[in-house]
Amino acid sequence: MSLRVGLGQFNASVGDIAGNVKIMRRFYEQAVKSNVDILVFPEMAVCGYPPEDLLLKNHFLEENRLAVEQLAKDCPKKTVIVGFAEAGDKGFFNSLAVLEKGQIKKIYRKCILPNYGVFDERRYFRPGTGTVIVNVNGMAVVLTICEDIWHLEWMDKFLKEIRCKDIIINISASPFYVGKLDKRQEVLRHCATYFDCAVAYCNLVGGQDELVFDGRSMFLDSTGAVICQAKAFDEDLLIADIDLADGKRVMVKSAARQPMPEPMATVAEVYGALVLGTRDYILKNSFGKVVIGLSGGIDSALTAAIAVDALGAQNVLGITMPSKFNSPDTISDAEKVAKNLDIEFRTIPIASVLNSFNDTLSMVEGWEDCGIAYENLQARIRGTILMSLSNRFSYMVLTTGNKSETAVGYSTLYGDSAGGFAVIKDVPKTMVYDLARYMNKINNKELIPQSVIDRIPSAELKEGQKDTDSLPEYDLLDRIIKGYIEDDKSPQELIKEGLPGDVVKRVVRMIDINEYKRRQSPPGVKITPRAFGKDRRMPITNCYTSQ
Amino acid sequence: MSLRVGLGQFNASVGDIAGNVKIMRRFYEQAVKSNVDILVFPEMAVCGYPPEDLLLKNHFLEENRLAVEQLAKDCPKKTVIVGFAEAGDKGFFNSLAVLEKGQIKKIYRKCILPNYGVFDERRYFRPGTGTVIVNVNGMAVVLTICEDIWHLEWMDKFLKEIRCKDIIINISASPFYVGKLDKRQEVLRHCATYFDCAVAYCNLVGGQDELVFDGRSMFLDSTGAVICQAKAFDEDLLIADIDLADGKRVMVKSAARQPMPEPMATVAEVYGALVLGTRDYILKNSFGKVVIGLSGGIDSALTAAIAVDALGAQNVLGITMPSKFNSPDTISDAEKVAKNLDIEFRTIPIASVLNSFNDTLSMVEGWEDCGIAYENLQARIRGTILMSLSNRFSYMVLTTGNKSETAVGYSTLYGDSAGGFAVIKDVPKTMVYDLARYMNKINNKELIPQSVIDRIPSAELKEGQKDTDSLPEYDLLDRIIKGYIEDDKSPQELIKEGLPGDVVKRVVRMIDINEYKRRQSPPGVKITPRAFGKDRRMPITNCYTSQ
Repeated sequence: MSLRVGLGQFNASVGDIAGNVKIMRRFYEQAVKSNVDILVFPEMAVCGYPPEDLLLKNHFLEENRLAVEQLAKDCPKKTVIVGFAEAGDKGFFNSLAVLEKGQIKKIYRKCILPNYGVFDERRYFRPGTGTVIVNVNGMAVVLTICEDIWHLEWMDKFLKEIRCKDIIINISASPFYVGKLDKRQEVLRHCATYFDCAVAYCNLVGGQDELVFDGRSMFLDSTGAVICQAKAFDEDLLIADIDLADGKRVMVKSAARQPMPEPMATVAEVYGALVLGTRDYILKNSFGKVVIGLSGGIDSALTAAIAVDALGAQNVLGITMPSKFNSPDTISDAEKVAKNLDIEFRTIPIASVLNSFNDTLSMVEGWEDCGIAYENLQARIRGTILMSLSNRFSYMVLTTGNKSETAVGYSTLYGDSAGGFAVIKDVPKTMVYDLARYMNKINNKELIPQSVIDRIPSAELKEGQKDTDSLPEYDLLDRIIKGYIEDDKSPQELIKEGLPGDVVKRVVRMIDINEYKRRQSPPGVKITPRAFGKDRRMPITNCYTSQ
Repeated sequence: MSLRVGLGQFNASVGDIAGNVKIMRRFYEQAVKSNVDILVFPEMAVCGYPPEDLLLKNHFLEENRLAVEQLAKDCPKKTVIVGFAEAGDKGFFNSLAVLEKGQIKKIYRKCILPNYGVFDERRYFRPGTGTVIVNVNGMAVVLTICEDIWHLEWMDKFLKEIRCKDIIINISASPFYVGKLDKRQEVLRHCATYFDCAVAYCNLVGGQDELVFDGRSMFLDSTGAVICQAKAFDEDLLIADIDLADGKRVMVKSAARQPMPEPMATVAEVYGALVLGTRDYILKNSFGKVVIGLSGGIDSALTAAIAVDALGAQNVLGITMPSKFNSPDTISDAEKVAKNLDIEFRTIPIASVLNSFNDTLSMVEGWEDCGIAYENLQARIRGTILMSLSNRFSYMVLTTGNKSETAVGYSTLYGDSAGGFAVIKDVPKTMVYDLARYMNKINNKELIPQSVIDRIPSAELKEGQKDTDSLPEYDLLDRIIKGYIEDDKSPQELIKEGLPGDVVKRVVRMIDINEYKRRQSPPGVKITPRAFGKDRRMPITNCYTSQ
C-alpha cells in the first residue's frame, strides 16, 4: 500500500477567493502530472487567513462555499483537501472540505480554536466536535486543522475510538516568529510517535498585515523524523509517498528526493520574513513603489535594503532630508546607501520649511526653537514631505523605526512614524545590527557601509544629540524590552535577575505611557513571540504601574 | 423580611487599583450611613474594565487579589459584592467576591464570556461553572455577572437546582451605544418575570478609551417593572428596599423615593456619552487642557462645545489656521464659535509655511501646487502646528472628524486626523447637526452659530470646494454607512432596499480601501452599535470586493 500526498503550500490573499481558487487549480494540474493521490491545501486556503471581520458578512461565507463547490468540480481526478470558512446551521466553523469526484465528500470542523496572541477564532467560530477519517488507497487518513494538533492530550481522547490511523494530515495557517519552527517540529514529532503514524503538515505562506506565514510544510514518518520540508517564505508543492512498513510502521519517502534544507540561522529567517512581509503588504495593497527617508543611519539603510529585495531596486526611492543638525558624514552615508542599493535618490533640505514653521509658531508666546517640540517639528516636516510624494506619485512610505524605539516611544508621531508599513518595527535594535552584517555577508560586499554600522546612533534633531542621551545602551534596553514585553515579567523580577533598577523602572514607564503612539503607527512584520499590534492589546488609558 | 441593597455605580479607572478601592471605601461609608445591607459594585470594579492584556501579567492579578482582601478588611460591617480579575488554579476568571466580616466569603465566576464586538473575554478567562447564592436577612440572593443574565435559556438550566430565588444581582460593565438601555431593560425585565424575583443591576460608569459606560444601574421588581434607576453618565449610589409581598411576589421600594428619570432623547444620551468619554480620556491620561483646530465648520464647533462641557472653557484652546482657500465667513465663524464658548482663540495663518513647502517640493519633477497632494499638504501643516503646540504646552489635540468622513476616508492622514482623541468619530454627520441644534436648544442661545449649521460643508482645501464634489449627500451617505457597517448588509441588499447602485458601490469601495487610515487614527467614543476600532476588525490587506 502506498499513498502519494502533495502539500500545496501557496500564497493565499485574504478576500481574493477567485484568485486563491485559481492558484489552487494550478497546483492541482501540477499534482495530477505528478500522480499525487491526495492534494492538501492550507487552513482557510479559499479565503486567506485571517479574514477577521469579513467573517461576519453572510455574503462572504456564501462565496466561500460556492468556491469550494467549484473547486470540487474543477479537480475531479484526485482527493483534494482544502480549508475554508463554513457557515453551518448552528454557527460558523473553521473547516476543511474533502473533495472527491467533483463533490464535497466530507467536512471536518476545527475543534480547538485559538483565542490568544494574534488569534481571535472564538470571535467567529464554534468548535467542531466530530472526527473525520478518509480512506485513500487503503490507508486511514485522519484530518485535523492547525491548533488541534498542538493539544496531544485532547487529541488522544478525541481519536480514541479510531483504531486505525496511518497518517494525520494537519492543515495550518501558522504565523512565523523566531523559534516557531522548532516548536512546530516538536509538536509534530510528538504527534507522529505518540500515534505511531505519519504526519503531513501543510502550512500557508505569505504576508498578511502584521503576519508572515513561513510555509515550511513537512512530512514526518512514524518515528517522528522529518523526512522532507517545503521551501521557507515561498510557494511550493511538496510531494511524498507514504508506505506501511515493518519496524518503522509508516514510512515516508520524498518524491523529489530533495535533501532536507539546512536549518536557517535566526538572522536569515528574520530577513526572509521581513522581505516577504514587505513585498506582500505592498503588492497585495496594490502599490508598486515605495519611498523611504534615508537618514544615513542603520535603520533606514536596512529598511531600504529589504525593500530592494522585496520589490526590486527600480521600485525604491530614497530621500534624504538634511537640516543643519545632520553631520556631513550621515548625509554622504545616505547617498552611499542609495548608490550601493542602486536606487533612485534625492536630497530635499528642510531648512526653509523649518524656518517658516518656526516663524509662524513664534507668534505663539512661549514657542521655542529648541526642545522636544522643535525636534518633533523637524521629524514632522520630513514625514509631510514623504507623504506629499506618496500622495502625488502613489508611492507607499516605508517607516524605519525598530522595536526598541517603538517600545519606548523614541519617535515622533506623524513624523518618522508616518507611513504605510513599518518594516522593522518588531526588530530590536541589536538585531538590526545583526541583519545589516548578514546582508553585507550574503551580498559579499559593503551593501550597508561599515561607517553606518559603526556610527553612534543619533536622531540628529539637535546639536550633538545621541540616542543614549535619552535611552540606555541598546543591549540593556533590548533585554528589558524582551523581559517586560515578551516574557511578561514585572520590573521586580527583572531587577532580581540583575538588571539595574532605575533603568528598568524608567524603561517600563516609557513603554507603558507610549501605547497611544504605537496605536497610531502603521503595521509591520511580526518576528518575535510578542509583537506590538494584535499580539499585545494594552489599554491606552492605563493607570497601572507595574512594580 | 426586608433587604436594603445599595448599587455603588462608580467610575473605576483601568489599572488604578488603589484609586478604585479608595472610591469604593467612600461609597461604603455612605452605604453604612444609609443602613444598606448589601453594597454592590460593578464588574471588575477593582481593576477597571476592560483591562485587556494587563490580565496577562501575574503581578497585576496578584494585586487584584490583595486589593479585594484589603477591601474586605476595610468594609466589615456590611455584605459587599465586588468584581475583580481572579487568578485561580486552573486559569483566570472574571469573578465577584462576596465580602463579609472582613473576609472573602464566597467567589462567583462569570459563566458566559462575551467574545464579540468590543469584547475579548475568551482571550483571558475561563468560564465559571457553579452557582453562588448568598442569604442575607433571610432572602436568597443569586449572583451573576453581566453577560450571564443576557442568556435566559442558559440561566434557566443553570439555576434549575435553586429552589428559592428572591433577588438576582447582576454586576456589569456594559458599554453605551444608542438603543442599549432599551435592550438592557428588556433583558432584565424578562429575567425578573421569568424567575419571579427582583433584579438589582449595577453597571459601571466612566470612559475607557473607545468605550463609555453609562451607569443607569437599576432595580426591577418581580413584575419586571423598573422601580428606580441611577444617574446616567455619572457616579451614583442607588438604594432600594427589597420586600417579599403577596401578589407582586418581590417588591422594591426606592429608598430615596426619587422619581424615575424621564427617558432621554437619543441626542441627549449621545451628548452625555461624548462629554464623559472625552473628559475621562483626557483626565485619566493626565492631560488637563486641549487644543482644537477651529475651521468655522460644524464638526470642530461641536467638538469644541463638547470639550468645554467636559473640561471647562478655561481648558480649551481654539486655533484657526486660515489659507487663501478659506472664506471670510468661515474665518469669522471660527472666531464666533470661540467667543460663544468663551475659550481662548488664536489665528495662525498657514500661507508662508505652505509656500515654503511648495517651493521645497517643487524641486521634485512633477510636483504640483494643486490636486490631492497639495490639499493634503495643507491639512498636514495644520496638524503639525497643532501637534507642535501640543508638544510645547502639553495640550492634547482633539480631532474633529465625524463617522461619515472616517468611514469613507474623507480626511488627511497625519493632517486633520492628527491628535490624541477623536471626539465625534462615531457620530454620523447627520447626527452632528442634531447635536448642534440640541446644544443651542439646551443652552437657550446660538452657542453654535446658525451660519455654521447652515453652511454647505466644505474642506476648503481648494477654490470653491464642496464635500459633495467627492461624496454623496450626507443623508444618503449615512444610510449606506449604517447598512454596510452596522447591519453588515451587502451592496446588493442595500440596492434592493432602493439605494442607488452606483453610489452604494462607490461608497462601499471607499469604506473598504480606507481601513489603513482608520487604523492610524486616534480613538474616539463609541456611540453606535458598531464603531470603528475594536468593534470592527477588518484586515487592511483585503482583496475582497463585496457584491
